[in-house]
Amino acid sequence: MSDLKNRQIKLAARPVGMVKPSDFALSTEHTTQPGPGEVLVKVQYISLDPAMRGWMNEGRSYIRPVGIGEVMRAGGIGRVIASGDAKVAVGDTVTATTGVQDYALIKATDVVKVDPRVAPLPRYLGVLGMPGMTAYFGLLDVGQPKPGETVVVSAAAGAVGSVAGQIAKIKGCRVVGLAGGADKCRAVVDEFGFDAAIDYKHEDVRKKLREYCPKGIDVYFDNVGGPILEAALANLAAKARIVLCGAISQYNAAADDLRGPRNYMTLLVNRARMEGFVVFDYAARYAEAARAMAGWIAEGKLKAREDIVDGLETFPQTLLKLFRGENVGKLVIKVSNG
Amino acid sequence: MSDLKNRQIKLAARPVGMVKPSDFALSTEHTTQPGPGEVLVKVQYISLDPAMRGWMNEGRSYIRPVGIGEVMRAGGIGRVIASGDAKVAVGDTVTATTGVQDYALIKATDVVKVDPRVAPLPRYLGVLGMPGMTAYFGLLDVGQPKPGETVVVSAAAGAVGSVAGQIAKIKGCRVVGLAGGADKCRAVVDEFGFDAAIDYKHEDVRKKLREYCPKGIDVYFDNVGGPILEAALANLAAKARIVLCGAISQYNAAADDLRGPRNYMTLLVNRARMEGFVVFDYAARYAEAARAMAGWIAEGKLKAREDIVDGLETFPQTLLKLFRGENVGKLVIKVSNG
Repeated sequence: MSDLKNRQIKLAARPVGMVKPSDFALSTEHTTQPGPGEVLVKVQYISLDPAMRGWMNEGRSYIRPVGIGEVMRAGGIGRVIASGDAKVAVGDTVTATTGVQDYALIKATDVVKVDPRVAPLPRYLGVLGMPGMTAYFGLLDVGQPKPGETVVVSAAAGAVGSVAGQIAKIKGCRVVGLAGGADKCRAVVDEFGFDAAIDYKHEDVRKKLREYCPKGIDVYFDNVGGPILEAALANLAAKARIVLCGAISQYNAAADDLRGPRNYMTLLVNRARMEGFVVFDYAARYAEAARAMAGWIAEGKLKAREDIVDGLETFPQTLLKLFRGENVGKLVIKVSNG
Repeated sequence: MSDLKNRQIKLAARPVGMVKPSDFALSTEHTTQPGPGEVLVKVQYISLDPAMRGWMNEGRSYIRPVGIGEVMRAGGIGRVIASGDAKVAVGDTVTATTGVQDYALIKATDVVKVDPRVAPLPRYLGVLGMPGMTAYFGLLDVGQPKPGETVVVSAAAGAVGSVAGQIAKIKGCRVVGLAGGADKCRAVVDEFGFDAAIDYKHEDVRKKLREYCPKGIDVYFDNVGGPILEAALANLAAKARIVLCGAISQYNAAADDLRGPRNYMTLLVNRARMEGFVVFDYAARYAEAARAMAGWIAEGKLKAREDIVDGLETFPQTLLKLFRGENVGKLVIKVSNG
């Protein structure tokens, strides 16, 4: 077991502005046997998430930064191939914070067993994983949409946005999605069932929001920040709720180029609120959300889609694909067959 | 009665950037007798409010803009000198949207009778008027401070801020105020009883907030926007509430110079929210607030202070005094003895 070669993608440098492949370094180490209370996981898929950009920065956040020379943090799913804990057996499929590597040595209490017969493995990193939980609690708990209200979702073709919009539809809302390019907009409407999509790269977002949301936006689920957030702020209904889920347009900006929403005072005029959340706070309710999502998938009301790229070594390039907005649905890397 | 000369300050031009005296024009007209359902009020005091700057702009807001050539909108208090309505008698003291003029012809249903023996008249434009209502509902309903929490208030020497901070103290919070200059900071601590004051003109606001709020800010009551809002965002506690009451630092900025809080994503990291409100929404509960405030004043827990400038004709200059932050407490103009 200790002869297994473990490729690891480590953080080599703190990025300045847009993340670059040279911010990472690939190295190969040998795996070690799990000690008592540990398990060794052969990674099958890893999750690529916008939040990764934040983890690469120095400084206080909701989670500590990845250190220089440390394996890049990532959620993953894989098979247990050696176990030092009676509660986890060899052969179990588990999700965990595996990091970007072939093999992960993890505390047994930090893995979550999943049933590989219930859903394809990448789905546990998407709709049934953190992005799904994020969409569920962000939309329902923070956004509190009511039937008949108008919900707008940015990055609507992405892992979180596509699910948030579909849940809003299930809850009886009118849903408008924003995405970049005609293909993604088509997916938003045809595949994910939104009422309308706006191509932010080629359309006048403010004008289109006014057209599609004639009574104003009741809930805006924001994954992007920047000018799209400003366009939403310019079209709020009274008592609107803005769910701050992410700001991918800002993550790669240098500190001096960061941009706040210049028209945030529309929150006052509209008696509206803007609220952030961190999905980990809802850990005690993940099971509730997973049950609801699995039910909706079974009923055909919720479509899950994954965008799968092959090969651990592609990580630095595939992460760029995420920040360029080139994925539709949940972006994952396939590391091995397990 | 129709021989009374009525000086009126009218809006002459929509200001670009900082309001200028030439944006107003003084003219004199004759008063007319009240028709049925109207009253004629001899104005004694008018209220100067940051919101006035917004009323001077074209465009949709929570209230329609003042038109060019119209009397500038203002809250005021005065004595009824002629009445066309049985419910309002000559000699009654009333508050109303009088406008900046000597005499106001107003619908009887739009005036509110007050008792001039209970409090000095300017107080009905301050603690017992809109600024007091704004502080009360903004802090308590939107901010929801809990005993022991840390509350920060900007423009703490102003009409709204001084009251919001005092109410927070009454509710058992630690309260830190921001004001410009040593004199105002002294008033904030010595007169209004805040636990500490930060002189934003001469001190490092971020550092001082960190020092005075070691556990972070639970409620930030914002009257100013701009860099001070950013400093507060940089020092939030988990689950913080930012009450958007105003943004006086931004009101005179040209549209291109408007600035949003660049670090608004601290709302996400801290699971915090930023929420706007409009005091008029609470009209049904004004009596509740006025009773509470009058009680606190009687018990010596709430200090009211007015900054009184003499002469209707000073309005354009006195409004600048407000935007320069030169007032302590509620700024009013004395128009007549009634």
